[in-house]
Amino acid sequence: MKAAVFHQPGTPLSIEEVGISKPGPHEVLVRTVAVGMCHSDLHFVDGHYPWPAGPVVLGHEAAGIVEAVGSLVRTVKPGDHVVTCLSAFCGHCEHCVTGHLSLCISPETKRGPEEESRLTYVQKPMMQFINLSSYAEQMLVHENALVAIRQDMPLDRAALLGCAVTTGTGAVFNTAKVQPGQTVAVIGCGGIGLSAINGAALAGASRIIAIDMLDNKLELARKFGATDVVNAKNGDAVQQVIEMTRGGVHHSFECIGLKQTAEQAFSMLARGGCATVIGMIKPGVKLDIDPMLLLHERKIQGSFMGSNRFPVDLPNLVEFYMQGRLKLDELISQRIKLEQINEGFDELRRGELARSVIMFDQ
Amino acid sequence: MKAAVFHQPGTPLSIEEVGISKPGPHEVLVRTVAVGMCHSDLHFVDGHYPWPAGPVVLGHEAAGIVEAVGSLVRTVKPGDHVVTCLSAFCGHCEHCVTGHLSLCISPETKRGPEEESRLTYVQKPMMQFINLSSYAEQMLVHENALVAIRQDMPLDRAALLGCAVTTGTGAVFNTAKVQPGQTVAVIGCGGIGLSAINGAALAGASRIIAIDMLDNKLELARKFGATDVVNAKNGDAVQQVIEMTRGGVHHSFECIGLKQTAEQAFSMLARGGCATVIGMIKPGVKLDIDPMLLLHERKIQGSFMGSNRFPVDLPNLVEFYMQGRLKLDELISQRIKLEQINEGFDELRRGELARSVIMFDQ
Repeated sequence: MKAAVFHQPGTPLSIEEVGISKPGPHEVLVRTVAVGMCHSDLHFVDGHYPWPAGPVVLGHEAAGIVEAVGSLVRTVKPGDHVVTCLSAFCGHCEHCVTGHLSLCISPETKRGPEEESRLTYVQKPMMQFINLSSYAEQMLVHENALVAIRQDMPLDRAALLGCAVTTGTGAVFNTAKVQPGQTVAVIGCGGIGLSAINGAALAGASRIIAIDMLDNKLELARKFGATDVVNAKNGDAVQQVIEMTRGGVHHSFECIGLKQTAEQAFSMLARGGCATVIGMIKPGVKLDIDPMLLLHERKIQGSFMGSNRFPVDLPNLVEFYMQGRLKLDELISQRIKLEQINEGFDELRRGELARSVIMFDQ
Repeated sequence: MKAAVFHQPGTPLSIEEVGISKPGPHEVLVRTVAVGMCHSDLHFVDGHYPWPAGPVVLGHEAAGIVEAVGSLVRTVKPGDHVVTCLSAFCGHCEHCVTGHLSLCISPETKRGPEEESRLTYVQKPMMQFINLSSYAEQMLVHENALVAIRQDMPLDRAALLGCAVTTGTGAVFNTAKVQPGQTVAVIGCGGIGLSAINGAALAGASRIIAIDMLDNKLELARKFGATDVVNAKNGDAVQQVIEMTRGGVHHSFECIGLKQTAEQAFSMLARGGCATVIGMIKPGVKLDIDPMLLLHERKIQGSFMGSNRFPVDLPNLVEFYMQGRLKLDELISQRIKLEQINEGFDELRRGELARSVIMFDQ
């Protein structure tokens, strides 16, 4: 099959032939229909994380159609429309049985580089990136790494549920558990930030303050449910939020992945407030946290993939979209072909677009 | 009345005459029976915090007997045995009506230095320390800064409920909400740490790991419910805890007030775990938090006065003591007179004793 292969930071991805295995007992072969381009892929392409070493097929925000299933698969069948999710779960470890599927680390639903590989490149085994490798015409994944959705749901928008939208809404619903009437600030209005804003609106937050440096993103944020916007270029965002809310917000969400904005998220909290860091911060960087702010019961926490329980959460998000309560159309700023993937990364680097989606020929 | 007056860091407290007003409409005059000596008082005496400026009467962990009440007081009457609490609450602000009494900042139950003072010293108004000033024969407090308890509860042990025990158990019950079967590590086995350990045992924690540098404190910790002990002198405490629990604990509690131990509390968490910082850390110090640990949904939060709702929590703690489920006798290492207060602070500085309690002549 055709796939975009990442070789090393600083070099463009190349479209090449990659081999893919047949499904094992619990595996599902999916024909990729659409895959969103996520900022965390860009982190790898730009070498901000030491891992993974190339050659590798990146991509992890995909939707498609089941082509074949392994002998023991019972949850999906060929022809089903599915969304894949990088947080494959085992279903029986401590984290899974207490509802924290996204923290599962059981190896059985994942395959390390040392085991029989799902992918091959130039006749050699190639690691599958976070069990998905979605920048490819096909994906071979564990059945606990996907969920079937309604067939009338457009797959390009469904793809976004695989990462950005689940991460943003899930951080609000599952990690922070925002309550109706609470105040929320969201720093960074990319795909995840806009989804967090939409999630806060769905959860009934009273004030939803969007923070960014670009006015066009702030305008988009209003469409997703922001009640107030703060352009961080017009003075200290923390001060602006504290003044607007007379003392700070109940919840803040960091959706960029920078030390400065993560620290700001913590500093703009009211007494008893909670900052949720969603963005991936460069390894080695440390956050400076003022314990005087902790003293009045502020907290800071990370959210990984929106603390998702995706077999439940994703179909809910599909319903929200169908009801017109979850915006996905506006998240997609352009649809491109796999061959244009490097241009898609350039767009991500400029940071002006909400999201590019790669569409495969069907 | 007689009180211990703090003048400035580095000089001993002196026993002097201090004037006290009559109760206003919502105030209660309490004859102090017992007052615990808390490490945070020592922080002020040693000048670790810029506030309060002397002369001032410190002390905030007291129990006594009601002598007189204001015209509108309905919750207590003369003769009632009471425990005072520094977290006076208004009962109608956003924090109070959502069950977070300890975060109340309404001024009406508190008196700043600019208002008519409850205390006078050498004919001049003197600020009342956190609305209590308990190192004195009498206290004049708002009725929402105390709660009546059973008369058969010994007042020296009841005094400890006013700060240390509420702070330690409340951090476990109210702030962290430890669930039965979860694993807990407690760093620092002074009055608060031992109370947190006892709280974890009451809450049904499966493993309760006490961490200290002194073997005699660790032995005491076992009596309070610790199932395991770690002497931090015998190698890295974080590594020891991670090895013992194969991956870290669900909850850690920092009960000392140091940068290093707060960072350790965060580093010894399992995926999804929560560190609760109870200790007061010197102003200006910043905690270095590794965002890679946040990524897997670890969190760090502060706990102030155990997130207490003391009118409910304190009588519960009294019942626990009466039932033999809450250890207080063992927390008191010595009973002293007000005149020995400087020796009490010396003991606190040495850090070997669980707690000194000042007893007033009745």
